[in-house]
Amino acid sequence: MRGLLRGLSRQAGQAPGTVGGPRAPAAGPVRLRTLVYTADACEARDQPDAQACFAAVREGAVTWINVDGLHDAQVLQAVGARFGLHPLVLEDIANPSQRPRCESTEAYLFLTLKMLRPDPSGDGLLAEQVSLIVLPGVVVTFQEAPGDVFDPVRERIRTGAGRVRAAGADYLAYALLDAVVDQYFVLLEAASEQAQALEEAALGGDPVAFVRALQAHKRELIALRRAVWPLREVLTALERTEPRVFEPATRPYLRDLYDHTIQAIDAVEVLRDVFAGVQDLHMTHVSNRMNEIMKVLTMIATVFIPLGFLAGVYGMNFERMWPVEAAWGFPALLGVMAALGLGMVVWFRRKRWL
Amino acid sequence: MRGLLRGLSRQAGQAPGTVGGPRAPAAGPVRLRTLVYTADACEARDQPDAQACFAAVREGAVTWINVDGLHDAQVLQAVGARFGLHPLVLEDIANPSQRPRCESTEAYLFLTLKMLRPDPSGDGLLAEQVSLIVLPGVVVTFQEAPGDVFDPVRERIRTGAGRVRAAGADYLAYALLDAVVDQYFVLLEAASEQAQALEEAALGGDPVAFVRALQAHKRELIALRRAVWPLREVLTALERTEPRVFEPATRPYLRDLYDHTIQAIDAVEVLRDVFAGVQDLHMTHVSNRMNEIMKVLTMIATVFIPLGFLAGVYGMNFERMWPVEAAWGFPALLGVMAALGLGMVVWFRRKRWL
Amino acid sequence: MRGLLRGLSRQAGQAPGTVGGPRAPAAGPVRLRTLVYTADACEARDQPDAQACFAAVREGAVTWINVDGLHDAQVLQAVGARFGLHPLVLEDIANPSQRPRCESTEAYLFLTLKMLRPDPSGDGLLAEQVSLIVLPGVVVTFQEAPGDVFDPVRERIRTGAGRVRAAGADYLAYALLDAVVDQYFVLLEAASEQAQALEEAALGGDPVAFVRALQAHKRELIALRRAVWPLREVLTALERTEPRVFEPATRPYLRDLYDHTIQAIDAVEVLRDVFAGVQDLHMTHVSNRMNEIMKVLTMIATVFIPLGFLAGVYGMNFERMWPVEAAWGFPALLGVMAALGLGMVVWFRRKRWL
Amino acid sequence: MRGLLRGLSRQAGQAPGTVGGPRAPAAGPVRLRTLVYTADACEARDQPDAQACFAAVREGAVTWINVDGLHDAQVLQAVGARFGLHPLVLEDIANPSQRPRCESTEAYLFLTLKMLRPDPSGDGLLAEQVSLIVLPGVVVTFQEAPGDVFDPVRERIRTGAGRVRAAGADYLAYALLDAVVDQYFVLLEAASEQAQALEEAALGGDPVAFVRALQAHKRELIALRRAVWPLREVLTALERTEPRVFEPATRPYLRDLYDHTIQAIDAVEVLRDVFAGVQDLHMTHVSNRMNEIMKVLTMIATVFIPLGFLAGVYGMNFERMWPVEAAWGFPALLGVMAALGLGMVVWFRRKRWL
Amino acid sequence: MRGLLRGLSRQAGQAPGTVGGPRAPAAGPVRLRTLVYTADACEARDQPDAQACFAAVREGAVTWINVDGLHDAQVLQAVGARFGLHPLVLEDIANPSQRPRCESTEAYLFLTLKMLRPDPSGDGLLAEQVSLIVLPGVVVTFQEAPGDVFDPVRERIRTGAGRVRAAGADYLAYALLDAVVDQYFVLLEAASEQAQALEEAALGGDPVAFVRALQAHKRELIALRRAVWPLREVLTALERTEPRVFEPATRPYLRDLYDHTIQAIDAVEVLRDVFAGVQDLHMTHVSNRMNEIMKVLTMIATVFIPLGFLAGVYGMNFERMWPVEAAWGFPALLGVMAALGLGMVVWFRRKRWL
Repeated sequence: MRGLLRGLSRQAGQAPGTVGGPRAPAAGPVRLRTLVYTADACEARDQPDAQACFAAVREGAVTWINVDGLHDAQVLQAVGARFGLHPLVLEDIANPSQRPRCESTEAYLFLTLKMLRPDPSGDGLLAEQVSLIVLPGVVVTFQEAPGDVFDPVRERIRTGAGRVRAAGADYLAYALLDAVVDQYFVLLEAASEQAQALEEAALGGDPVAFVRALQAHKRELIALRRAVWPLREVLTALERTEPRVFEPATRPYLRDLYDHTIQAIDAVEVLRDVFAGVQDLHMTHVSNRMNEIMKVLTMIATVFIPLGFLAGVYGMNFERMWPVEAAWGFPALLGVMAALGLGMVVWFRRKRWL
Repeated sequence: MRGLLRGLSRQAGQAPGTVGGPRAPAAGPVRLRTLVYTADACEARDQPDAQACFAAVREGAVTWINVDGLHDAQVLQAVGARFGLHPLVLEDIANPSQRPRCESTEAYLFLTLKMLRPDPSGDGLLAEQVSLIVLPGVVVTFQEAPGDVFDPVRERIRTGAGRVRAAGADYLAYALLDAVVDQYFVLLEAASEQAQALEEAALGGDPVAFVRALQAHKRELIALRRAVWPLREVLTALERTEPRVFEPATRPYLRDLYDHTIQAIDAVEVLRDVFAGVQDLHMTHVSNRMNEIMKVLTMIATVFIPLGFLAGVYGMNFERMWPVEAAWGFPALLGVMAALGLGMVVWFRRKRWL
Repeated sequence: MRGLLRGLSRQAGQAPGTVGGPRAPAAGPVRLRTLVYTADACEARDQPDAQACFAAVREGAVTWINVDGLHDAQVLQAVGARFGLHPLVLEDIANPSQRPRCESTEAYLFLTLKMLRPDPSGDGLLAEQVSLIVLPGVVVTFQEAPGDVFDPVRERIRTGAGRVRAAGADYLAYALLDAVVDQYFVLLEAASEQAQALEEAALGGDPVAFVRALQAHKRELIALRRAVWPLREVLTALERTEPRVFEPATRPYLRDLYDHTIQAIDAVEVLRDVFAGVQDLHMTHVSNRMNEIMKVLTMIATVFIPLGFLAGVYGMNFERMWPVEAAWGFPALLGVMAALGLGMVVWFRRKRWL
Repeated sequence: MRGLLRGLSRQAGQAPGTVGGPRAPAAGPVRLRTLVYTADACEARDQPDAQACFAAVREGAVTWINVDGLHDAQVLQAVGARFGLHPLVLEDIANPSQRPRCESTEAYLFLTLKMLRPDPSGDGLLAEQVSLIVLPGVVVTFQEAPGDVFDPVRERIRTGAGRVRAAGADYLAYALLDAVVDQYFVLLEAASEQAQALEEAALGGDPVAFVRALQAHKRELIALRRAVWPLREVLTALERTEPRVFEPATRPYLRDLYDHTIQAIDAVEVLRDVFAGVQDLHMTHVSNRMNEIMKVLTMIATVFIPLGFLAGVYGMNFERMWPVEAAWGFPALLGVMAALGLGMVVWFRRKRWL
Repeated sequence: MRGLLRGLSRQAGQAPGTVGGPRAPAAGPVRLRTLVYTADACEARDQPDAQACFAAVREGAVTWINVDGLHDAQVLQAVGARFGLHPLVLEDIANPSQRPRCESTEAYLFLTLKMLRPDPSGDGLLAEQVSLIVLPGVVVTFQEAPGDVFDPVRERIRTGAGRVRAAGADYLAYALLDAVVDQYFVLLEAASEQAQALEEAALGGDPVAFVRALQAHKRELIALRRAVWPLREVLTALERTEPRVFEPATRPYLRDLYDHTIQAIDAVEVLRDVFAGVQDLHMTHVSNRMNEIMKVLTMIATVFIPLGFLAGVYGMNFERMWPVEAAWGFPALLGVMAALGLGMVVWFRRKRWL
């Protein structure tokens, strides 16, 4: 549950547009990196501070400034001052509980979305907020912590594979969004495999453990839903915004990304249905197994109760009980009991109760 | 349930636009306060009556008139007369069961919304209606009772933190709305923690108490939903109203507030899912526990019933029952019984019934 | 169920626009009343027939003609002829199973809605159809039977309270609609109290009686929903219709009525959730109580079954059963039995089964 | 289930626009009837073939050509050729699994809808497709089999009741649609009565039979839904189509029909809720009854098990069992047993388990 | 589950617009076929490579190029180069997990949809992606594997049946879409029959097997939904796209196809309801059967427990137990027992427990 609604109330009581503030944890220095490339060259570099990053921006090249860590208010303020960002945009970048959304002004395009990764502890998903500022020739990305899903993009920029080196900052922004969405599909495929594993677990094992696992998977799906659904609106809004950040050559890619998002939403909904089906299967299995056990046990009890009654009758101490004195009495009664017991079993079989 | 639909029918049978009337409780005098500030100065004062409040309004400054208590019809009438409010607006202010909504005329903007706080008695939420009248240079707020969520705003005005002192009445109105919505997030976070506590309670304890607690939390969520959902429409309407009360510089803040509201709606929906999951978990736990108990107990009964039958057979009083007379008869039968009992336990184990 | 879908098929097989016909019950004479008022005077009168009503209409005054009873086709025809109503409007007035709706022509505005009252027999709701014809200076209302919710309006007209005497026919129409909607709130409040009573009943009493009561309340909610939901569209349509029947001074009241309707819809939906919660609570209570009983009873049986087996063993008639002959045998065995029984109870306690 | 999805795949593999084909059953000759009327005269006649029908069409009169039976491809082709119908329209007429819809061209208006009747075998509904071609002065209707719901319309035409004789082909089309919709209300009323009957059946009788009956009624509702919902769109489309087939005088009737359709949709939804309520009631009843039985039976067993244990103890064959030798032993023990049994019953009563 | 979300993540980490790549399986050569026809002639031919296909395109004729197999990147590249396809279109063709959609440019129309067939292994559905490129005079289709639902279309082209030979490439595209949709109806009819079979299975047999079968059918329905629902949007988009690929004469067929799609969606939704009903029936049956068994068995136990107690009482070894010594004691007690047992059975009958 932790990841789902993390940090909801943290800005309560603060003036709107405040960045940082009392709750920001002192989690070591923020890592700053720049990646500057043209069609011909490409240079990646770690930077000591924000000013060094700004100095790396070159006319005619695309500069990608990546900030790992949101807790250094000075870095945020510096970026905000350099690129003329609205204080509320800075607050949104600093506050990792934003819903995916975009906002465009004359000068820049602001995008925030959720980067989901499997928790390295092997349990659940890690939802990290990624914010993008897209300006002519510059893309600034903010992440909560080091480690991201952008390595394939960096690789493509370094090796010059695909269109990315030849295209502008808008294509870079698209490529980063695409990397985030691609990761959703990896998670959806994993969820699909978990659903298959759960389906087998549904027919055996501890029911409470099963339901807990099911709930955990459902919550991952909820996290995915919360990441994917708003993205749809974001991408629709991107196509409509003026002035158009995305060049005509990039727009088909954006539509393709939109289609992928719809596909991911689709898959999330299918998985919800599948999980519901697995839960049904499990409940049927549990109640069926219980019923089978109770049925057989009750049968055993039921067969022996009348027989026990007969034995009780002949255990009574009446003076004259026919045929107690006869030599054939005991075996005869045993025979009657056997016949009665068999008769009942046969009767149960006939009625299909066994 | 009390808070949910409180005072629904109170205006039935009265002429529309009537303020006060037979049901208004005589709950002591109404408290009136004014807070007048400019970029340079700020003065807070308790006022004896409505006229004193109006006298405090100064050209070039922002005046915030706060009314705690809705039961004094004269105060409402005075405010209505001074600022030219429609009788229906006065009725809506006086009637605390309004749905959040806004209404704008040439002269003023009227807003009503729900201020939610945890009940000081520790049980459930207290829903209080807050109404705002926004005029050029003046904001009038009406609350049902003393005690509110506006102290951070008052603090910011007094200390001059943030933009509030430099901005106009529209920003004050925004700041008050923002304080109300921030409180929702505090409540949502609390609800999220309760959900976690409930999840542990789901695996133990009294089921009826658990379900009652769950229902109570669900009702709090319903109250939150009823407060948050209409707010979305209100904020959308605010952006569209003409003449525009909110200046261009304030509008991004309004959009930000809108985004927060969407986020709150989102969180409410996620919490509904989470509570539903907790209920599922609880039901599985209860039925699983019951099944486990019944299974073991039935097993014990089932093992002893055939053994008891055997004992009954040799308790019969037949003259000649082989091997009753033999010295080895008793230990032999005990041995047979032990073997039978063990055999049944082994068989149950094999079938995975134990 | 009777009230829900009453009289659905009655016009089947008749020519469209037919009024009365074979099914109309001969339920005594129709009651006709007129109420004529100006700002200065007001006269209420029972009228013998439709022509007398029409004669009471005076230029410069507002005339309210009220018809109690729909079974006299001649009255309907007379009204239709006098005010130029379309035959289908007459059919709709005569047919009490209409869905709330409005229709406006150049000459008149036609409105039909549901007046709900608690059944005087104390069981369920009585849904009565009210139709309004609004013309310049004249309002004609049709009800199914005597007895209505308009007495407060009549009182206000007689005493001259509120705006009604000073305003025109459009305000009278609004006041009547408002009286109907106010009554919904009375019913909603009653339903809310019933929900609270039901919540207590959920934890005791006859389950079938509880479920029947719950169903009855749910059906009342359905009736309310059917009355309120379409009203929303009706009021939206009223604002859009041309030529505008409602004068600018009356329109804010109409919007206020619209807001009340939304509030009623809201309350209906909340009550649905509340009733669903009560049902959940009841089901948990019943199954929990059953489980408790079965558990204790099974425990008793389970403790005594092994003890009974022991008694059976020493009831066997073997010649030599150690320690049957010993003087300490009987008390020793009783001791063993007591120890065994206590041991099992302790074991059950440890496992938290008791 | 048969009626629900009948004949879905029959056109698979055929060229689009093919009429008839391998699956058409040879179900006797098709019946052709014409009904020609003006304001003054009216003539109904059975016709031997399609050409005779066309010959009956007269300028200045309204001609209704009714075709009972869709299996004669030649009749369809003839009608198509005579009135210039598109091959796909002919295919739709011939294929009885169409969804209600309408299509208008310059020359004609094509409408297809579902005529529902109770199955004469008393079980379920019979869904028959009715198609209408509306041209100036001519209406052609196609039905699957003889027997329909149009007799009231024929009667009105013959007797000259209502507006039908004075109006044109558009009013005839309306009257036929109205007759179909009226029949829905008859079915809805029947369903409402069945719901009441089911509610009584819910509290007794065979559960499987009850659930089967419930399912059957639900399926009838589904059939009704499938007939009524698309009709709404059809009627909306009819109002919008150009050139306007329906004259201004007929349009209010069409709007009235639209309102009736909305009412029918409403009633279907209410009945769904009612059926769901009945199912709840039934399930509560069944589980409650089972619980009552099990409780009493378990009580009986539980009371006698400790008593039986006591009897077993004194049935043991120990030499010295106090107070076996005493004369008062037997009655004393019986007294103890009675006291114990009564005590347990009292205890159960106190705990409200009985 | 396999078919539902197959291959979701395969493009993750690749540059957008990449075709083929590491995951493409080497599944033998791709099969290429051309079908060239005019109104008078028609020639079908297997082609060795893409260039041969392009060479077969003739002015004034319609050429259908069919590609079976998506794993040969060179064929895709060749087609893309020849017809000027966007790299993303090629990626979509190569990636079989696309959602049905269409995209139109100045030069061509791109369509992708799902071809569903029953799995030849008899278990579940095989979902294969079909992509169409429609250009003036040329249709290119891509399938994942040999075997399709287009044989009826090929047959009609060869024999010249229907309109296909006389019409252009747009009609061919329509005919192919129509063949795919027709196949959905075959599957829906099969599903409807399975539902009927399941309904019988619901009243007997292994519950887990039943639930598994039900889930399998539900998943097929999900697959159908995923294929059909987006098709609706695709067809809506097709009507709106400019420049218009579909000629006026073909458009009515397209609308007809749209209506069929709506019908299929409708049928899918009805089947969902039907499957839900079958599940209800099954659950009622299982619980009812269990209840019946438990009831009868508990009755047997309950009747014999008091009788067994009586026998136990007279099995006690008290010296003086009346009427143990009497000759009539034994038969009298047996009589009492019989009377008691019968009395209980009669009592149970009266209470309707048996």
